[in-house]
Amino acid sequence: MNIVNIIDKKRLNGELTKEEIDFFINEYTQGNIPDYQASSLLMAICINGMNSRETVDFTMAMANSGETLDLSDISEDIVDKHSTGGVGDKVTLILAPIIASLGIPVAKMSGRGLGITGGTIDKLESIPGYNVYLSTEQFKENVKKYGVSVIAQTGDLAPADKKLYALRDVTATVQSIPLIASSIMSKKIAAGAKHIVLDITCGKGAFMKDLNMARDLANIMTEIGKLSNRNTKCVITSMDQPLGFAIGNTLEIIEAINFLKGDMPKDLKEVILELGSQMIKASRNGDDIEENKRRILDAVESGIAFEKFKTLVSAQGRWCILCWRCIKIWKS
Amino acid sequence: MNIVNIIDKKRLNGELTKEEIDFFINEYTQGNIPDYQASSLLMAICINGMNSRETVDFTMAMANSGETLDLSDISEDIVDKHSTGGVGDKVTLILAPIIASLGIPVAKMSGRGLGITGGTIDKLESIPGYNVYLSTEQFKENVKKYGVSVIAQTGDLAPADKKLYALRDVTATVQSIPLIASSIMSKKIAAGAKHIVLDITCGKGAFMKDLNMARDLANIMTEIGKLSNRNTKCVITSMDQPLGFAIGNTLEIIEAINFLKGDMPKDLKEVILELGSQMIKASRNGDDIEENKRRILDAVESGIAFEKFKTLVSAQGRWCILCWRCIKIWKS
Repeated sequence: MNIVNIIDKKRLNGELTKEEIDFFINEYTQGNIPDYQASSLLMAICINGMNSRETVDFTMAMANSGETLDLSDISEDIVDKHSTGGVGDKVTLILAPIIASLGIPVAKMSGRGLGITGGTIDKLESIPGYNVYLSTEQFKENVKKYGVSVIAQTGDLAPADKKLYALRDVTATVQSIPLIASSIMSKKIAAGAKHIVLDITCGKGAFMKDLNMARDLANIMTEIGKLSNRNTKCVITSMDQPLGFAIGNTLEIIEAINFLKGDMPKDLKEVILELGSQMIKASRNGDDIEENKRRILDAVESGIAFEKFKTLVSAQGRWCILCWRCIKIWKS
Repeated sequence: MNIVNIIDKKRLNGELTKEEIDFFINEYTQGNIPDYQASSLLMAICINGMNSRETVDFTMAMANSGETLDLSDISEDIVDKHSTGGVGDKVTLILAPIIASLGIPVAKMSGRGLGITGGTIDKLESIPGYNVYLSTEQFKENVKKYGVSVIAQTGDLAPADKKLYALRDVTATVQSIPLIASSIMSKKIAAGAKHIVLDITCGKGAFMKDLNMARDLANIMTEIGKLSNRNTKCVITSMDQPLGFAIGNTLEIIEAINFLKGDMPKDLKEVILELGSQMIKASRNGDDIEENKRRILDAVESGIAFEKFKTLVSAQGRWCILCWRCIKIWKS
């Protein structure tokens, strides 16, 4: 198999076989295909696209390019969520403790910022002492023990995606629905969750600028989920203006804490209720969406969600002696 | 100016400005833009194309990326020819001495093989002792003294094209009319000839598989010639079967010698007469194509063309003591 022939096939808008895709992903990850050939193929994919079959094969090849997590020994109900991101997106910080407080285990690997905004991991790191780098064993242990853990994606998970994403970032090949879909789904699949809720942000502050692009992405990710035997649900949410009122890593942590203490900005509340109720449903813990929303509000109002947040943070504390900054946030 | 924005513009089928093209060519030649960004842009150009204005700017940027030859001190009539190549193409070996024998100076820089066939330089090197690496001064000196010189393109001429071509070869970005046109024309322009006759081979054994592609290439190269103030004439010739009967570097030298001695295969004769008569016309040494063809036949039949071939070879001889191989070829 020859990489130049594979690139040429895609240049001419041909359909790549599973074998050709596997060859490219494996050889590139191992360093046998240089960046200049990979970027040429990525640009051909960007312009000429990939059909669903190619996209699923691309996703699975990346998911299987490194370590894959098996969380089934903890629970079959573990639910994961992912957002395509945007300005002021602090949803994970709020939803992870809420869902966990309802007895549904949340095992979440998050990313850093793409483009101009911080990611969930950057935001969590603004909590002094929060350790985003747990070992896989510790991560699973925390989920088992506390029902929740949020860590940075390890380099051993979908290394092909990591390497390809870095290349796409500097070769103007980020904007491709099949490549975006396979990048997200490969990480989710490798991270082991059987139930996945995807928040596809859409609007001026998001990757997907219009509804049609967001729908295309939702369709292809649902298709990948189906074909890879993952219960996948997509929710398209608006990102025409920042979510809530706070923007900035520390400020968003404070807003998340305030939310969990009952101070819920309208737009953020709507997104939390919609995504959260879908997460409960996806994990087979309640089919009635309206009832699920009530349970989420109860978790916030009763204080169990905020308690779970504190558990999450202290369970991943590295050297947290309460400094003035922590105390200020905690007591505020 | 940012290379990622330039790539992104072409990904979206935008039109690159002269400044953007100059930036890319200059920075890439100087090693400030890595191969993986260049190949991504090349693939976007391959698929989305470039209009004539972009192609001319691309050509001139490459032509000016290194040394440019000025042959006007030798003569204003110097004519260059170029073929897009094919199997059994020994036209330069025959035409250079014929045209020179008619008193029209021929200063030709040739290439090596692309793909499966040898190039003119590979063929000339099968003559023991023939030195394809003359210095620019020696090259000009030989043209002045003997009216003809055929050497390998120096690395100082259009270095951007040299670097880009090597990259295109391994990234499946060769097949692009604007890139092929600008590659050829940048070298011709840098090599200094004011009159250029282009043999665009078309058919199974050529880069251009069909007549429409060949016509597109002819049109864009004529356009580049016009805008760069070069008198450019394109001739489309068939390459559905090898030209003449010989294929292989040494065999083609023998066939060229036999041609110059009067043994002219029909197809090869037709191409030689057509291109040669256009070269005479382009150099402003005769407007009547039929008359020009007669002059070419006369040059062969009278033996002056073969004499010029011997002059060409001995003038570029490095250590040619006549070995048994030379004697065999010469006496045959």
